[in-house]
Amino acid sequence: MNNKRRQFIKTAAIGGVLAGTLPRVLAAAPPASKDAASGKKNKIKLLKDDIILFQGDSITDAHRKREEKEANLQMGMGLSYPAHASAELLCQHPGMNFKFYDRGVSGNKVYQLAERWDADCLDLKPTVLSILVGVNDFWHTLVNDYKGTIQTYRDDYKALLDRTKKTLPDVRLIIGQPYAVKGVKSVDDKWFPGFLDYQAAAKEIAGQYGAVFIPYQEVYDKAQQKAPGSYWTADGVHPNLAGARLMADAWLDAVTV
Amino acid sequence: MNNKRRQFIKTAAIGGVLAGTLPRVLAAAPPASKDAASGKKNKIKLLKDDIILFQGDSITDAHRKREEKEANLQMGMGLSYPAHASAELLCQHPGMNFKFYDRGVSGNKVYQLAERWDADCLDLKPTVLSILVGVNDFWHTLVNDYKGTIQTYRDDYKALLDRTKKTLPDVRLIIGQPYAVKGVKSVDDKWFPGFLDYQAAAKEIAGQYGAVFIPYQEVYDKAQQKAPGSYWTADGVHPNLAGARLMADAWLDAVTV
Repeated sequence: MNNKRRQFIKTAAIGGVLAGTLPRVLAAAPPASKDAASGKKNKIKLLKDDIILFQGDSITDAHRKREEKEANLQMGMGLSYPAHASAELLCQHPGMNFKFYDRGVSGNKVYQLAERWDADCLDLKPTVLSILVGVNDFWHTLVNDYKGTIQTYRDDYKALLDRTKKTLPDVRLIIGQPYAVKGVKSVDDKWFPGFLDYQAAAKEIAGQYGAVFIPYQEVYDKAQQKAPGSYWTADGVHPNLAGARLMADAWLDAVTV
Repeated sequence: MNNKRRQFIKTAAIGGVLAGTLPRVLAAAPPASKDAASGKKNKIKLLKDDIILFQGDSITDAHRKREEKEANLQMGMGLSYPAHASAELLCQHPGMNFKFYDRGVSGNKVYQLAERWDADCLDLKPTVLSILVGVNDFWHTLVNDYKGTIQTYRDDYKALLDRTKKTLPDVRLIIGQPYAVKGVKSVDDKWFPGFLDYQAAAKEIAGQYGAVFIPYQEVYDKAQQKAPGSYWTADGVHPNLAGARLMADAWLDAVTV
């Protein structure tokens, strides 16, 4: 790709102007999360009165209390990265009037997000939407006889984002990379190379929809230079205390106030 | 008090050498949490393999799962300042092998800590012990017909610390100031001036036992310059998400790694 074209794609992706209408040929666009020329990471600028929704599976759910539906409730935000990230932003920026919601649901794959998307996303009218989904779309093909493929994941994810952009054209997107910590309990050799396609798809979709992309796999890989995988996650998928904070740091690094 | 004597008390208090044997006359010693001469805060130096125990009432308990007894468990650390502070230290210092426990129990007054002190403190052999207790010792005199007085609080607290120092002579202590956010729900005019005596007693005891003192009341008072009390606590006593992080910041400021 020549530089001019790359620049166009980058600019478009940052602005989100091509969201939902990006032709297939641009699928290999550079990830939205880093500006190759400046080396500066693209970030979501959080604005006053932002409504920030965390969506995903058990990693985002993290034992939240379903009945705690209002914004910024301690038990409603669960025990993981959404709680740590939101607590920090609420504490540091009381004047911003942020409203945080967590609507992760354990076990969810993309099609299951779609099933509850009206109530658990669109009706909340988020201005910032953070999604982390994909590990079950692959994992459940190994353990739950789930028949979805990488194409199902990609198609379902794009349909979900198209639907979101239709109702919420100005929503700012954060897409987290599905990750797995190899060698820790549930994550064995059977995951590879199959799971890598899901990781690549999430990154590609982030680029296509002008989302800021959080490379959680890289985050966990780097963390393992400091301590073994089991220090961050008990089963290779769900973060523990240290892992939750690790992910919150990565999430916070994807936004600016 | 002349400067020389003040210096002696300060040094002694910092070193903890007088712990448990400090004569009554020194009760008015300056708080251990700030070195008046240098302006530098005294902090607990966290060491490799430290076992750090959070003790207290519901503010520390914060919906922790009782059956999650092992160190560093996400659901065992509850949803409040112990979770936020421990997650951050575990994430930032994987090589230190810290073990964090939360053993706060909702509703506890000092005598109730004493009732479960063997199992919930001494048997865990903490090297760093953080205690926040006192709000119920006062509050329950208003609402639960509890008959304890400020003298009960003071005597029970000192007996608990004497007992602790006897079994764990080298334990490093952090004592949190009981706090209440006036005008928010449960905290009305009936709390004052009575509650102030409990706050003063905790500070005095911290000085006597060489503890680092966390002035949570000051922390909440300062926070109210940025947002109203109800932004930090729904009932004037229990922190919400923002308040939990506020307290974690104060706690983290009391330690150094």
